[in-house]
Amino acid sequence: VDTQPALDDPTYRAAVLDLLGIVAYGELTAFERLAGDCAMAPALSDKASLAALACTELRHYGQLRDYLVELGADPEASMQPYIGRFDAWHESTAPSDWLEGLMKAYVGDSIAADFYREIAQYLDERTGAMLTEVLGQTGYDDFARQRLLDAIAADPRVSGRLALWGRRLMGEALSQAQAVAAESRALEGLFVGTPERPGLGLNVLAEIFTTIQTRHTERMAGLGLHA
Amino acid sequence: VDTQPALDDPTYRAAVLDLLGIVAYGELTAFERLAGDCAMAPALSDKASLAALACTELRHYGQLRDYLVELGADPEASMQPYIGRFDAWHESTAPSDWLEGLMKAYVGDSIAADFYREIAQYLDERTGAMLTEVLGQTGYDDFARQRLLDAIAADPRVSGRLALWGRRLMGEALSQAQAVAAESRALEGLFVGTPERPGLGLNVLAEIFTTIQTRHTERMAGLGLHA
Repeated sequence: VDTQPALDDPTYRAAVLDLLGIVAYGELTAFERLAGDCAMAPALSDKASLAALACTELRHYGQLRDYLVELGADPEASMQPYIGRFDAWHESTAPSDWLEGLMKAYVGDSIAADFYREIAQYLDERTGAMLTEVLGQTGYDDFARQRLLDAIAADPRVSGRLALWGRRLMGEALSQAQAVAAESRALEGLFVGTPERPGLGLNVLAEIFTTIQTRHTERMAGLGLHA
Repeated sequence: VDTQPALDDPTYRAAVLDLLGIVAYGELTAFERLAGDCAMAPALSDKASLAALACTELRHYGQLRDYLVELGADPEASMQPYIGRFDAWHESTAPSDWLEGLMKAYVGDSIAADFYREIAQYLDERTGAMLTEVLGQTGYDDFARQRLLDAIAADPRVSGRLALWGRRLMGEALSQAQAVAAESRALEGLFVGTPERPGLGLNVLAEIFTTIQTRHTERMAGLGLHA
């Protein structure tokens, strides 16, 4: 039995286009946000490092956009439904300083990346490989983690504030993920499925959330913070 | 007689490091500003085009920073004196909408690029080639010009406002250029010189300003606007 989902199945294809649209728009807003956070950089070298990472996100956006075009989809149409959702996420988690911005990128973006990377395992080979590639390490993790560790070492009092902020980011990420899932029939179809093609099942979704929580706890622990 | 200025002449070297610091910091702020203007983009494709151009500026910044390091200079130290100057320029010319942002990049940045490209002709070969390369066409000109022409065609009334804005940009650019020249002894030395090594001469500076004005008038005319 060929269990590989196929892009010529309209239900599966719609879910893939939705997923690619979400991740593509996420990369484009990640570019904008990281570039905006450059204004808070304490040194020109930090500014330039962050700017370079923003450009990596933009390159990933370009790969996803090109892949959408290759699949015969309109990238703008695939992204459009998620604009308000990402705006809501960025408004509810606007960092108030450089360190909160680093945490948002290191902790917040990683939660989203983990979520889509886990889903990628259940997709057709090419789509899965594309998502795994663009959601892979950007070099940001090392940069942000080191800067955060330096800041906590320099003033241990910041760790309480950052731990609270990390929990807030996780809470907001989960509520946005639920909203995205509820809004997209296509994504719902990927998990719930149809009589002809059963979905991944809600137990898979539950496993994914457990994995995300575990990775989040590990990242926070890597900073000496409780999740 | 070898008239090529040499980087082992301390006076000339200081002027080159100042110039490279100015242009490098200019590229870094160009990245930040173009990335910030992405928020005003009327369509996702415009946003992505502008973001890609911002990343081109950042790549140019990286080339200049690496060249400064190669020359044994500290890039941060070379840029530091010009931070306030660029902030003043960006504050006095903050665009109020997408079209003013396009004009600022197309008209304002081009004035600065023309200025440093003209100076580049009088520098040692490697420094001149480096500046000419990073200040060359970024693809932004075509993008911005086409969008501006489209906007003027769609609503001819915007042309009056943009013409006024273009003149304002030219005025502010000239006053900032004068302030930079007055603040940097090294740059002053490049033009005025010393008894041992005469400078380029103030007539060269006057020619450069004439060239800048001519190019500005041509760019404005290319939009159907009076300079």
